[in-house]
Amino acid sequence: MTSITEIAKNARHAGRRLATLDAATKNAALTRIGEDLRIHASEIFSANSRDLARAEENHLAPPLKKRLVVNEDKLAEIIRGVEALRALPEPVGRVLEARELDTGLELYRKSAPIGVIGVVFESRPDALVQISTLCLKSGNAVILKGGSEAAETNRALAQIIGTASLAAGLPDGWISLLETREDVGLMLREDAYIDLIVPRGSNEFVRHVMDSTRIPVLGHADGVCHVYVDADADMTRALDIVDDSKTQYVAVCNAAETILVHCTVAEDFLPALAERFAGRVKILGCPETKRILPAVDAASDDDWRAEYLDYIVAVRVVDDVVAAVDHINTYGSGHTDTIVTTDTARAQWFMTAVDSASVFHNCSTRFADGYRYGLGAELGIATGKIHARGPVGLDGLLSYKWHMYGAGHIVSDYTGAAGRAFTHRALDAREQ
Amino acid sequence: MTSITEIAKNARHAGRRLATLDAATKNAALTRIGEDLRIHASEIFSANSRDLARAEENHLAPPLKKRLVVNEDKLAEIIRGVEALRALPEPVGRVLEARELDTGLELYRKSAPIGVIGVVFESRPDALVQISTLCLKSGNAVILKGGSEAAETNRALAQIIGTASLAAGLPDGWISLLETREDVGLMLREDAYIDLIVPRGSNEFVRHVMDSTRIPVLGHADGVCHVYVDADADMTRALDIVDDSKTQYVAVCNAAETILVHCTVAEDFLPALAERFAGRVKILGCPETKRILPAVDAASDDDWRAEYLDYIVAVRVVDDVVAAVDHINTYGSGHTDTIVTTDTARAQWFMTAVDSASVFHNCSTRFADGYRYGLGAELGIATGKIHARGPVGLDGLLSYKWHMYGAGHIVSDYTGAAGRAFTHRALDAREQ
Repeated sequence: MTSITEIAKNARHAGRRLATLDAATKNAALTRIGEDLRIHASEIFSANSRDLARAEENHLAPPLKKRLVVNEDKLAEIIRGVEALRALPEPVGRVLEARELDTGLELYRKSAPIGVIGVVFESRPDALVQISTLCLKSGNAVILKGGSEAAETNRALAQIIGTASLAAGLPDGWISLLETREDVGLMLREDAYIDLIVPRGSNEFVRHVMDSTRIPVLGHADGVCHVYVDADADMTRALDIVDDSKTQYVAVCNAAETILVHCTVAEDFLPALAERFAGRVKILGCPETKRILPAVDAASDDDWRAEYLDYIVAVRVVDDVVAAVDHINTYGSGHTDTIVTTDTARAQWFMTAVDSASVFHNCSTRFADGYRYGLGAELGIATGKIHARGPVGLDGLLSYKWHMYGAGHIVSDYTGAAGRAFTHRALDAREQ
Repeated sequence: MTSITEIAKNARHAGRRLATLDAATKNAALTRIGEDLRIHASEIFSANSRDLARAEENHLAPPLKKRLVVNEDKLAEIIRGVEALRALPEPVGRVLEARELDTGLELYRKSAPIGVIGVVFESRPDALVQISTLCLKSGNAVILKGGSEAAETNRALAQIIGTASLAAGLPDGWISLLETREDVGLMLREDAYIDLIVPRGSNEFVRHVMDSTRIPVLGHADGVCHVYVDADADMTRALDIVDDSKTQYVAVCNAAETILVHCTVAEDFLPALAERFAGRVKILGCPETKRILPAVDAASDDDWRAEYLDYIVAVRVVDDVVAAVDHINTYGSGHTDTIVTTDTARAQWFMTAVDSASVFHNCSTRFADGYRYGLGAELGIATGKIHARGPVGLDGLLSYKWHMYGAGHIVSDYTGAAGRAFTHRALDAREQ
């Protein structure tokens, strides 16, 4: 049995080799992975049927069971995802900045892999393929821990990906699969070898991870998203956006939890909202909301911070856009907030003042998603402000390095009264 | 007396207002700050003379005392720095990415301030002006703690900057000055209000900060930099680069600590190096180095990890560039490493394989510096791989937000078999 420290150390070594591989080698490995997933389909399906049988025995809730399934259609979708990723331009070594410091002394800031990524993800087994191939494409080694409900499927998928990529010339150890919760705890200690942790899962789990490791964590604990219906909102549009933001899929982080309504339109808007939500969504309201809609229950201070993930919504009447922004910056989680208004200057101010990863004008909070943003596969959503923010795709797996090319240049020639001056001339951002 | 929590909370509020200010307002504040530093020059000089008198009493070492001095020349340089910063293009709101998701639904990734930055810096009082104006320009609130040797000068400078910026319409509380080490400890707990800590100072101090806060830390603990002299190195050039990297300024993080020499040139290079360093730099060597230079002391495993910051250098003979990279990735600190060679393919491989913030070809490690890189003022140097890496200027003080503009777009129109498809068409990166 290999220890977690050994796994992490091997991942560090493999990651450093992966960082030196060219696009052709990495893409050949992605091709081979796609082919091998097809070739070994029956092994995947049989592992998956064992997971499903166990889910049946354990009386897993139907939506969770549904997410577990890997059938012909799902596998075809997974393989298409790998092919789409292979087709993307090479993300490593892109010149982000280029400057001549002096004749013959040139500085290039180039994208570079981060190194070793630890990812803990929910029960969907397709996430394993998506995350590991994202890491491969971006030159990172990865240590994965999937949901225990999908243990057999995950093992089969990780095995196929590991073998296929080894055959394609990738270094052993670039992908590893952990299987127990205890192993995750041990992984969080390996800050000498792991550069970034991406936890996907329940809020409690993400917060636990953030609190128990020195490794930087990319993720979000809460998704308390808002829709602000402004004085100058189109009421039909506002109803549609509020409804979609709240109910299109209630169990996700980009669903709206609180609706803020400008006081001058509350008398019109709130009865219409109550009618739209009748029998579908429970409304909790501030005193002014309760005055207009006497039947609703009172919202407490806790409700402004609540991530219901359910058919419940908190509603507050506010004096103006400043009060709306104050509410969002006080109670929100920095995830996604939208303003509905026809006043573009006010929308612009709202978007600048709200301190959230995604700030929208006249559209549903549910658009905050890597696929919808066109980022390709999504690694996760981050609400921190350091490194990546909002939906994170390949970019979140990249850092950069400063490459400098000289011809014997030394610093002592640039010091003192007679020292040479730097030219600091922008160069074409083309690689040397 | 305001508590540290109050200071941090006020900074959070001020930062959010600062984030909404336009370039003209921020630049007017920078103009006013420059003017007021000139107007209040005598207050600054008199505060500085009190610091210098105390330094005299406390028998501060002459180089430290020299760094404390703010005289006419130094003040002019400080004011020129503020003017140069004001002249830089507005860093906030730059469009980093732009994409149409569908007709009328447009996504813009725009640079945004991080929020509240806590900076602990060394005794140079000019650092206070540099750091606080960098924060102002980038729309961030800042909490500063300077070296206690410069307490009076720092207080005068912070007072002038605060008053000038308030008069120019900036929010109260965007700049605060802490005065005790205890306050720094309290600041590190304010993760609810502070987004980033930048510690500048001794390695022990930086490591202490990294270990004692949940706030992300931008900085570096060690600077163990290497020069690798390849088989195909020009020997004269190699000697000059090694000498400059080691001795141009020994007390800084980008000075070289270990020299790696390819075995086929060691017989030629090492005696020349010993002659160059004779009486100036003490050499510690690996067994092969000792065979060629019997007079040198043996280097231990600890020496490969040592940041001497002194006229001492560790020398190791290696079999090839792979062994050189292995050594650097094993013992280095990920700061700056350089290869001296005429073989550009090998240089390219070295630069890709070395996992450091700055990787150089044929130039001195001493170039790794924000000013020399042309970044304008330097906030610090980071050796982490998340967010900013290497010398960090204004960019390290920026995050981004996703701005989306719709016309009532809702997600339910894009789901199911008959759902609309996204166009995901690249837009001109011009702001809407």
